[in-house]
Amino acid sequence: MNKKKVSLKDIAEKAQVSTALVSYVLNGKEKESRVGHEIAVKIKAIARELNYEPNYLAKSLRSGKTQTIGLIIADISNPFFANIARIVEDEAKKNGYTVIIGSSDENAEKSRDLIAVFLNRQVDGFIIVSSEDSEEQIRYLLDKNVPFVLLDRHFPDLATDFVSLNSFKAAFDAGSHLIQNGYKNIGLIAYKSQLFHMQERIRGYRQSLAENRIPFQSTWLKEIGFETVEKEIRVGIDDMLAADFPVDALIFATYRLAIAGLKYINSLGLKVPDDLAIVSFGQAEVFDLYYCPITYVLQPMEELGKTAVEILIHKLKQPDADKKQILMEAKLVARDSSRLKVKVA
Amino acid sequence: MNKKKVSLKDIAEKAQVSTALVSYVLNGKEKESRVGHEIAVKIKAIARELNYEPNYLAKSLRSGKTQTIGLIIADISNPFFANIARIVEDEAKKNGYTVIIGSSDENAEKSRDLIAVFLNRQVDGFIIVSSEDSEEQIRYLLDKNVPFVLLDRHFPDLATDFVSLNSFKAAFDAGSHLIQNGYKNIGLIAYKSQLFHMQERIRGYRQSLAENRIPFQSTWLKEIGFETVEKEIRVGIDDMLAADFPVDALIFATYRLAIAGLKYINSLGLKVPDDLAIVSFGQAEVFDLYYCPITYVLQPMEELGKTAVEILIHKLKQPDADKKQILMEAKLVARDSSRLKVKVA
Repeated sequence: MNKKKVSLKDIAEKAQVSTALVSYVLNGKEKESRVGHEIAVKIKAIARELNYEPNYLAKSLRSGKTQTIGLIIADISNPFFANIARIVEDEAKKNGYTVIIGSSDENAEKSRDLIAVFLNRQVDGFIIVSSEDSEEQIRYLLDKNVPFVLLDRHFPDLATDFVSLNSFKAAFDAGSHLIQNGYKNIGLIAYKSQLFHMQERIRGYRQSLAENRIPFQSTWLKEIGFETVEKEIRVGIDDMLAADFPVDALIFATYRLAIAGLKYINSLGLKVPDDLAIVSFGQAEVFDLYYCPITYVLQPMEELGKTAVEILIHKLKQPDADKKQILMEAKLVARDSSRLKVKVA
Repeated sequence: MNKKKVSLKDIAEKAQVSTALVSYVLNGKEKESRVGHEIAVKIKAIARELNYEPNYLAKSLRSGKTQTIGLIIADISNPFFANIARIVEDEAKKNGYTVIIGSSDENAEKSRDLIAVFLNRQVDGFIIVSSEDSEEQIRYLLDKNVPFVLLDRHFPDLATDFVSLNSFKAAFDAGSHLIQNGYKNIGLIAYKSQLFHMQERIRGYRQSLAENRIPFQSTWLKEIGFETVEKEIRVGIDDMLAADFPVDALIFATYRLAIAGLKYINSLGLKVPDDLAIVSFGQAEVFDLYYCPITYVLQPMEELGKTAVEILIHKLKQPDADKKQILMEAKLVARDSSRLKVKVA
């Protein structure tokens, strides 16, 4: 049996066309080059008949040289992370890297499995959005000198490269903005989490009250479990509205908390912002399309993602480079959901 | 130098506690087991001092046995695919598999790179949401006997396993529902794509008009390029509204088209459904939180994802099993955006 590899030239000869044309068609570029439909069909048929092995896939398979970055995100079903993943991919692709993604679902065990899978499959380096309780895994990567950059969340006790948001300042700005617009009883709905960025959001919120001499009420702060968001949000909002100093404004510390909260606020028939003003972290189409556009903390997503890729790629080339620890600033985008409070006459 | 591995017992002896306690703490379970904070800190410090290698990660690294599925989705920033990815992960995890994800961004070249990367890294099998022009890649996997299942999109000419939606029927139902509710001039905004599921949506929509003896107008159908959605949507909607038979209802063939369309409809000051009724494919929080809840085609996402995993795992165990080709039915969820048309007196 003749095992000689079928080439583009073989196909071109049989089809009586140029090799370039065959290449166009077999690389799916016939639309761009205005190849006639009939001739394209003919070329493909001959390629199949001769058992042509598409060069493009086979080539990268043989070389095994594809450079790869492992990206671990905390939750793929959260649009913030999904969009960051897309940015990381685009930036990596520009630099000749392919990204493979794992989602830890905010679960340390899954995160550990993913790190092991990616290490076994020899990714060149990692970009990681850490989940709760994953500090020991990060320490392990550090000890083993695996190149990685933490994205969006970091551990202040670990000397890693990271690109995160200045969450303290962002939450402080959110609280201050509401106070300036006449709201006084401001609640915060956050996650129950030891993750530093979440603790910083709580600290920034409390600081905005303190600097404006508004005494903090413990009913105003709700820390919600990851697994029981819907239920705890309902109970928490009920509690905040029934308190001695009922809230007139709410800050949501993440997108997912905002969605669950807004659904419940709608179901109660409360009007935003007259009954309850809203500011949220995270960003998503729903904040634009809601009947009252939602004020939100604009995180520099593009910058966060791109910078993480840059740092990692630089690190891959120069493993001894100094650690980069970058805190980026968010920007409050003020809209109707937190507009100036109307005083009741 | 003593290279003997440090064990939990070594740490326990030095800390003068039980091995079980050390294990709890080093596996991050101290919260569950009510270990005192001080003793936990002490144990972690000793583990570090002795250079203890966390067993959990090292073990999976040494064995290299983690079973892995490669999932290729068409666009990670689309919530439909992000949610399906989460379902696939959960189901795979139940079966002892880890999922690594790549996003092709509807781009055949990226899809090809990802397939090569995943094959090089020896995933056990693939679940693939195909992108435009990727038919040859799928044929290649078929020829090479790589185990895979197509999800959400399939190629009618290829004898692969697949789990998809009955897109013809879903679009037919969407059109029929609008007609029953009194709308007559119904437009469809779809992608310009040769992908079978998109062609089927167009065919189903046209069939709903034909069966109700509504003559189709070519201005009612807009096929939008992936790269130019925002611009083409504006031009397309303008054109549909200015036509001889201006549309009184719109069907969006995907979530992303709906978001772009609704933003433009809002900016025109049109009211849904009085000025324009809406039905959309895809599902997302924004359809619930919009001022007028949007009627949508509920795709059995959970079923789609789970079934794809089931078929793949079965295939991995029994490579010669018969091909499974499954078309699932969508369900139209009727809400205010397509309610009974108010007749002008």
